[in-house]
Amino acid sequence: MPRQTPRNILFVMFDQLRFDYLSCAGHPFLETPHIDALAARGVRFTRAYVQSPICGASRMSFYTGRYVQSHGAAWNNYPLKVGETTLGDHLRARGMDAVLIGKTHMKVDEDGLDRLGISRAGIIGARVAECGFDARVRDDGLWAEGADGPYDAKPSPYNAYLRERGYDGRNPWHDHANSAISDGDPEDAQGEIETGWLMRNARKPANIREEDAETPWLTDQAIAFLEERRRTRTLVPWLCHLSYIKPHWPYIVPPPYHALYGAEHVVPAVRTDAERAHPNPVHAAFMQSRVSRSFARDDVRNEVIPAYMGLIRQCDDQIGRLMTYLEQSGRLKDTMVVLTSDHGDYLGDHWLGEKDLFHDPSVKVPMIVYDPSPDADATRGTTCDALVEAIDLAATFVDVAGGEFPGHILEGRSLLPLLHGETPTDWRDFAVSEYDYSCTPMADALGMAPGDARLFMVVDRGFKLIHAEGGMPPMLFDLENDPDELVDLGRDPRHAKVVHDMREKLATWARRESQRTTVSDAQILARRAGAGGRTGVLIGAYDEDDVTANDLEPYTGRVTRTVQGASDER
Amino acid sequence: MPRQTPRNILFVMFDQLRFDYLSCAGHPFLETPHIDALAARGVRFTRAYVQSPICGASRMSFYTGRYVQSHGAAWNNYPLKVGETTLGDHLRARGMDAVLIGKTHMKVDEDGLDRLGISRAGIIGARVAECGFDARVRDDGLWAEGADGPYDAKPSPYNAYLRERGYDGRNPWHDHANSAISDGDPEDAQGEIETGWLMRNARKPANIREEDAETPWLTDQAIAFLEERRRTRTLVPWLCHLSYIKPHWPYIVPPPYHALYGAEHVVPAVRTDAERAHPNPVHAAFMQSRVSRSFARDDVRNEVIPAYMGLIRQCDDQIGRLMTYLEQSGRLKDTMVVLTSDHGDYLGDHWLGEKDLFHDPSVKVPMIVYDPSPDADATRGTTCDALVEAIDLAATFVDVAGGEFPGHILEGRSLLPLLHGETPTDWRDFAVSEYDYSCTPMADALGMAPGDARLFMVVDRGFKLIHAEGGMPPMLFDLENDPDELVDLGRDPRHAKVVHDMREKLATWARRESQRTTVSDAQILARRAGAGGRTGVLIGAYDEDDVTANDLEPYTGRVTRTVQGASDER
Repeated sequence: MPRQTPRNILFVMFDQLRFDYLSCAGHPFLETPHIDALAARGVRFTRAYVQSPICGASRMSFYTGRYVQSHGAAWNNYPLKVGETTLGDHLRARGMDAVLIGKTHMKVDEDGLDRLGISRAGIIGARVAECGFDARVRDDGLWAEGADGPYDAKPSPYNAYLRERGYDGRNPWHDHANSAISDGDPEDAQGEIETGWLMRNARKPANIREEDAETPWLTDQAIAFLEERRRTRTLVPWLCHLSYIKPHWPYIVPPPYHALYGAEHVVPAVRTDAERAHPNPVHAAFMQSRVSRSFARDDVRNEVIPAYMGLIRQCDDQIGRLMTYLEQSGRLKDTMVVLTSDHGDYLGDHWLGEKDLFHDPSVKVPMIVYDPSPDADATRGTTCDALVEAIDLAATFVDVAGGEFPGHILEGRSLLPLLHGETPTDWRDFAVSEYDYSCTPMADALGMAPGDARLFMVVDRGFKLIHAEGGMPPMLFDLENDPDELVDLGRDPRHAKVVHDMREKLATWARRESQRTTVSDAQILARRAGAGGRTGVLIGAYDEDDVTANDLEPYTGRVTRTVQGASDER
Repeated sequence: MPRQTPRNILFVMFDQLRFDYLSCAGHPFLETPHIDALAARGVRFTRAYVQSPICGASRMSFYTGRYVQSHGAAWNNYPLKVGETTLGDHLRARGMDAVLIGKTHMKVDEDGLDRLGISRAGIIGARVAECGFDARVRDDGLWAEGADGPYDAKPSPYNAYLRERGYDGRNPWHDHANSAISDGDPEDAQGEIETGWLMRNARKPANIREEDAETPWLTDQAIAFLEERRRTRTLVPWLCHLSYIKPHWPYIVPPPYHALYGAEHVVPAVRTDAERAHPNPVHAAFMQSRVSRSFARDDVRNEVIPAYMGLIRQCDDQIGRLMTYLEQSGRLKDTMVVLTSDHGDYLGDHWLGEKDLFHDPSVKVPMIVYDPSPDADATRGTTCDALVEAIDLAATFVDVAGGEFPGHILEGRSLLPLLHGETPTDWRDFAVSEYDYSCTPMADALGMAPGDARLFMVVDRGFKLIHAEGGMPPMLFDLENDPDELVDLGRDPRHAKVVHDMREKLATWARRESQRTTVSDAQILARRAGAGGRTGVLIGAYDEDDVTANDLEPYTGRVTRTVQGASDER
């Protein structure tokens, strides 16, 4: 029986959503019934790692299906170099649209466009600039402005929306979505801004109607896209990348979500005094950042985490809206729905804030895949603990779209076999993630030049190694005996062999052929089969005994004429 | 005193010229007085390694300044992917032309051009298709034809030239440059083709006037370019890549060169019976190729090597012509002259023919650099045994052209310090070369899939390791005690530590950040210095104590107005 694959793909990404901040993943207080329901319809992958624990690098891996070392966009706003093949390129070549609604953190390679003479006005240039997507709405969500100007100089579609909805000011995102109103009552606030940038305001209600917050707004955009496809009866299958901005900081959320959770719902930080007493120098440097120092305080955690949970609860409600729409419109029958995040959030675990390092709260992400095809019926509602990487999603989507699999470009593996209850015997036995912290103050603190301020994570089913360039010692966690990753064995001589073996895995990975993207394995095997070929080149043949008559046929005719003086010039 | 750099660069490459087939490099019989004279004016590098011992991959490294693993064009006719920055791109951005005369083995990435909508007719597309050069003459030299058609489907400028010169036939290269005439007398030959493809004909004279052979023809083209620049008084400095086709096989040469050397001038093959008795399986597989079996025969070597020497002697005479022209036209005062080869030729050493593996006859190349600037006076006529890689030439040329050095793209090091008598303390302590043999019958013989049919060489001043993917054992040579690389220590348990240490070097190399080509180190350091910036993003600030008033200024104004119903929607 031929394999049945979904027609469309709804690829939902949250930003900075921890793998364990879902009720289906065991959070004791946070309720995410709609995401749980999606998990009950599909497979929840419990060991899904991103290729980098920072937005830009991670996303470029999601969108190219390639490791960070392969695509090179190793930090936020490092341009993805022109020429990198994107998910959109692969899908369009297979007859599928690739539409973006929301955030990508894509920075265009302006020099590359200029060097190759590619117009930004044309469709090709526009797609290159949007990481291969047809951008219906591109909004990266951070409309901050300071003395040096805006963080993001692009026009803000969200600000345009807010203005349409009657929110005024030059930057309504700033005044409303990212500002609090005192005591939950806007009328009493007397207009004093209480900025979402200060986490002391996290528990206060955002100064915005809930329906106009970023998460519902992006859901609206996705439903509008789906409605448009329905109305116009467009036959082209699609991937819609619905890429939410939240629950990423600033941690502030409108009513009622701001008040759903309190300090009593904050799970204790996963950290020990021993971690602080003898840290790996890289870990120590990251502990010193402002965000880590803030999250080291329980009072801060108790203010901020309830807002983070409220943001997630809001996200969950929007997933509910979306699923209802998909069901009612009939799209749930032919649409794969994927839910993941670009990385997690330490929230004070291991004395860290933000992401950046490789403990599970940072590098492991939620990943839920609903495949409508009957082939996936057997796995519905199950979890899968295979080692999965973010790049596997692009591979899965291209596999869904059909055609020859471009394994010479895509470095991930299709999840379809796992979704269909098969476990390939050659499934990967380790996963890799990377972090280039060259742009950060931590690189200065550690005295690292750009090429040296780099970290690699290698994780298998037993251990997790963090290898640091620049002569720093490694970090090592025994995942079986220390699943919370509290005891760093990287400098323990008794674990030298494990460190060595994990480094060997990293070396094997690093030697991979990631740039031979212009020739497929199938083309190579065809050339190998035709090696020695029949194009007249005879390498190493001494005489007629070394060749076939067929090989020699072109060379046994008669010279039309010899040339006068050919041998008597000198 | 500011550094004085040459104005122009004449970048001469031979094809398949062994490092030790020059009299200045110690060949006991072959005379290369003109190349020796160049060496006497400049520096001869005695440990120059190519990035791959096969034409296409090696050349793409020369022309991009990047390792094969970085550019991905790992074998002949693997297209160089669109987007790779070339030497020509770097030089033109610095006001220097980059002109090609001869061979590049460049295969254009047609899919990439189409994907990015780059016209082949425009100057950008034309340069992408020619590996970044402005091609005056592009001729890869192998105009073979067989039952499946031509090896190279491009029009042949050399064939056009031969026709102009009165050589007839559909493929005069075939009938003349690559065919022998019996007994050196064309009148007696009765027109019977004796093809240069059969090495038994190597000692016979080619059926062509010496002045019309490929090597003089390309010299003519170079002199014509230089004359044109002189006549038109063009002020733009230039790099001219004069890329000879010879002494690459087919081994056949016109008079008088066919008769200059005989069996008595053939140096014995460097090989032992022990090498054949217990070879590394990779070495064993390559020994089984037709060309290796041919060169294993002393009678074959005695026929072929004199022709190879004759071809080199012809090359040397053309270098003489060129140097005379440069001197007489005044160009020797302002032009750097570089002479090298894309790889060597085993000629039966180690029971191998052709190139492909990593013994010195294959992977080490001649490299002579003449720098006209007074800064280089102290080193004239010297040799330099620093570990040099082929990619160092692109770095040198860009250094000559001036401007900020693009160290985030170019992986080589400028040789200018070495040419000026300085030895940088941080000069590399190992060199790397690679070979992807996926397309060859040897991959089948060893049962290797495309990704596994790959070899890496790591060489330092003491040892040379050849690491083979696919679970094959390594090869190891002790260069101090076994400079001829006759004893493979790769499987000797007493050398396990050396193997381990060399593999660590390879791992360090493999983890390098080769694709972060859109952001320079200087840009990173500037971003690091401005980290935390003033664009309004405040990560991890809890309250006013965590920030400066300046940071907070944008957020302490008054909200224009709160929005009705902002808190009472649900």
